[in-house]
Amino acid sequence: SVIRHSCQPCFGPHLRRYVFFCDKGYQDTDTVISSVTTKVKGIALTNTSDLGLRIWDAADYVIPAQEESSFFVLTNLIITPNQTQSCCAENPGPRSSCSTDQDCEKGLVNKHKTGMQTGRCIQFSASEKTCEVLAWCPLEKEANPPDPPLLAEAEKFTVLIKNGIHYPKFHFRKRNILPHVNSSYLSQCVFNRTTDPDCPIFRLGDIASEAGEDFQTMAVHGGVMGVQIRWDCDLDWPESWCVPTYTFRRLDNKDLKNNVTTGYNFRFAKYYKNERGQESRTLFKGYGIRFDIKVFGTPPGSWNCIPLTLLGETAPNNM
Amino acid sequence: SVIRHSCQPCFGPHLRRYVFFCDKGYQDTDTVISSVTTKVKGIALTNTSDLGLRIWDAADYVIPAQEESSFFVLTNLIITPNQTQSCCAENPGPRSSCSTDQDCEKGLVNKHKTGMQTGRCIQFSASEKTCEVLAWCPLEKEANPPDPPLLAEAEKFTVLIKNGIHYPKFHFRKRNILPHVNSSYLSQCVFNRTTDPDCPIFRLGDIASEAGEDFQTMAVHGGVMGVQIRWDCDLDWPESWCVPTYTFRRLDNKDLKNNVTTGYNFRFAKYYKNERGQESRTLFKGYGIRFDIKVFGTPPGSWNCIPLTLLGETAPNNM
Amino acid sequence: SVIRHSCQPCFGPHLRRYVFFCDKGYQDTDTVISSVTTKVKGIALTNTSDLGLRIWDAADYVIPAQEESSFFVLTNLIITPNQTQSCCAENPGPRSSCSTDQDCEKGLVNKHKTGMQTGRCIQFSASEKTCEVLAWCPLEKEANPPDPPLLAEAEKFTVLIKNGIHYPKFHFRKRNILPHVNSSYLSQCVFNRTTDPDCPIFRLGDIASEAGEDFQTMAVHGGVMGVQIRWDCDLDWPESWCVPTYTFRRLDNKDLKNNVTTGYNFRFAKYYKNERGQESRTLFKGYGIRFDIKVFGTPPGSWNCIPLTLLGETAPNNM
Repeated sequence: SVIRHSCQPCFGPHLRRYVFFCDKGYQDTDTVISSVTTKVKGIALTNTSDLGLRIWDAADYVIPAQEESSFFVLTNLIITPNQTQSCCAENPGPRSSCSTDQDCEKGLVNKHKTGMQTGRCIQFSASEKTCEVLAWCPLEKEANPPDPPLLAEAEKFTVLIKNGIHYPKFHFRKRNILPHVNSSYLSQCVFNRTTDPDCPIFRLGDIASEAGEDFQTMAVHGGVMGVQIRWDCDLDWPESWCVPTYTFRRLDNKDLKNNVTTGYNFRFAKYYKNERGQESRTLFKGYGIRFDIKVFGTPPGSWNCIPLTLLGETAPNNM
Repeated sequence: SVIRHSCQPCFGPHLRRYVFFCDKGYQDTDTVISSVTTKVKGIALTNTSDLGLRIWDAADYVIPAQEESSFFVLTNLIITPNQTQSCCAENPGPRSSCSTDQDCEKGLVNKHKTGMQTGRCIQFSASEKTCEVLAWCPLEKEANPPDPPLLAEAEKFTVLIKNGIHYPKFHFRKRNILPHVNSSYLSQCVFNRTTDPDCPIFRLGDIASEAGEDFQTMAVHGGVMGVQIRWDCDLDWPESWCVPTYTFRRLDNKDLKNNVTTGYNFRFAKYYKNERGQESRTLFKGYGIRFDIKVFGTPPGSWNCIPLTLLGETAPNNM
Repeated sequence: SVIRHSCQPCFGPHLRRYVFFCDKGYQDTDTVISSVTTKVKGIALTNTSDLGLRIWDAADYVIPAQEESSFFVLTNLIITPNQTQSCCAENPGPRSSCSTDQDCEKGLVNKHKTGMQTGRCIQFSASEKTCEVLAWCPLEKEANPPDPPLLAEAEKFTVLIKNGIHYPKFHFRKRNILPHVNSSYLSQCVFNRTTDPDCPIFRLGDIASEAGEDFQTMAVHGGVMGVQIRWDCDLDWPESWCVPTYTFRRLDNKDLKNNVTTGYNFRFAKYYKNERGQESRTLFKGYGIRFDIKVFGTPPGSWNCIPLTLLGETAPNNM
């Protein structure tokens, strides 16, 4: 036949290619509707000179408080308290170190710096002079993040992940809190691939180790973890066989050849006003782990595409 | 022919399967570019002992203030004002109730509790003693969310959803604010499937009822609603026929067999500093409805895949 | 043959359609795992009567501080400082202008207005009277956003976009910080399609102009920009050939026929408490540009589907 002749030259015996026969159900693949909500639990204790002895709970370390399919847990911090809009000496550097006012340029706003130069050259420290800037002063000190990380206890935090899926055309709904999971189990279980594979509560440290990562190392500079929930259901089988499987992997690549700018951090601030109405803020350079949750699912109907061996080979026996 | 013979045994007369013939356009399906922005309007009035008479506007109840394709509206609250880092009696429970200091363990941080035990056993109430903790005190009281919900008026809030789509390869752009929709219509319209199907402003209560949900019930414990915008356009037809259709469904599954941990809530806090620089916060356990917006679109060109009946049946007439 | 006969009538000579022969690899297309993190740098200086001379850094203008695959940069502002829950005259309008108390309705909460009417008709200005409301007073003035925009300097801000991709089945990982990009290059480079195509740091103004937009115009009312990162890799070629390409386009459609409600803005607030515990807030109507980052990738393996010419045409030579 025509097909046989035109095709044969390109398939060697080691290459098995199939033509697919599909039913309409194939087009449903993209209509898996899923929703995810998360709730992190756990408290950490820190003791720093800036903040004293301090308890951190989820309202403090989950930033922002809610997202669609992602959550971020703060694990490390550089804190700069009591910043106000005022003038101070810029951090030393190629474009800020100075010996006289002539080295500074009034009005200069340097994209790598933190404020607007006032034109004066002032003492940065006993031995160094830098250009004065209007900025949020005092400036954040240039420093590496603390190691061990400040919120090292985040390793013991847990997250409840609630995932509901829906295949509209099949009128099929299911959620990852399975029918047999009751309140008392849910109040104390922790996911374990062997002993508690149906518990939707995950210890953050376990997520890291399942992905082959050391939580404490990752917590210093931050990173991104992927949580994948996969639903492979077939409605020809009993519904109770339709259960999710969880896999974890680190998403921000650790490029062994190039470790430039690895990790994940961002700056945020809490704003205050004193009795005279003057604004101040506490600046946080927050390092932490963002968990991105992705849900995959094949339609719960029968298989949609069937492979059919080409070129005179007979179809597989399980067809 | 070979195909006929290898395939025939697996298809009964009740199963109609097709082989698909596709043109290159098929690969464009995944290149629909879409953007969504939202703006919620409405005000609610609450009257609680903690906060007194109070007006809530969008800057108060939309959390966070902006997201990519999702928005959250606060509908219910448990408020714990004036928390400071200090010591107080833990809530009673299996691991915190005590009769003497020996029952408490200095330094213990229990993942289910709220702070670090100081080692002292103190009065929780006139009749009960619990271990003292360093925590954000006073602790949040363990309670069910108010019913009716505090921001019951959220049912009357409206949201303007702006959605622009773009098919790069077809140089086709369109937005859901259709050419005939003008400012004066937009300032007063509300979506109604029959009378105002082109109005992109939705009453939150209508979204719930279109999905078969009771807004007030859902507002107590929170939940997740899906807003689906579907563009099925065919450039062979006039462009004015290319309009979006909206569907709504609840995404967080209400599992009738298992109502464990349903709803949607999270904790967030507002931070203050008093004149002596001491930090306090108001803790909110916020319940509400997250609206996830998903945009679907088939390419605006002609169909890409055509089914061809197998096994000697003739092709459909409309081919 | 059967297929030839049933199909021939529907294909004219100008339509070239193929039947696809696929190997199992075809199903991998949807399993591209990607993560994106961003960091915006730059400072802006504003001088307004409300705030005085003020420096803005990323902790001030990136809202919220972190998102999954999107970031928002504030470019323009209407600021209403020192709002408290109190009573004041509503803005004039069809349902708020009044001449006597009879025109106002105690308890009325109008969805288009800002508070609850107290039932009194008071002076709004020397010449106008409006209904008094309990609201966050003073009310935001109805006004167009400043032009030029307040944070016009945002055009010079830069954003570092870190993107890691992963094809699990191929055990292939790569990130957009390429092996040859070192710290010193990264500390000073800016993306330029011709001279610095591998620099993952983008000037916001360049993103706009690459998309054919004027940043300053867009900054006044805000908008949504798309940043597309495309990985088209083929592992049959050297890995060093696998590099991302970046394209930029405006996503919120500027409908030339209908410019109703264009742009992007939202309201947010900073909350304060005075020494007597009374809460106040500064309300911001923030205009700005949201950058949505989308990552596309074809699997890094060999092609998965091969087209085979139908209807007696011979297969392409490169098969």
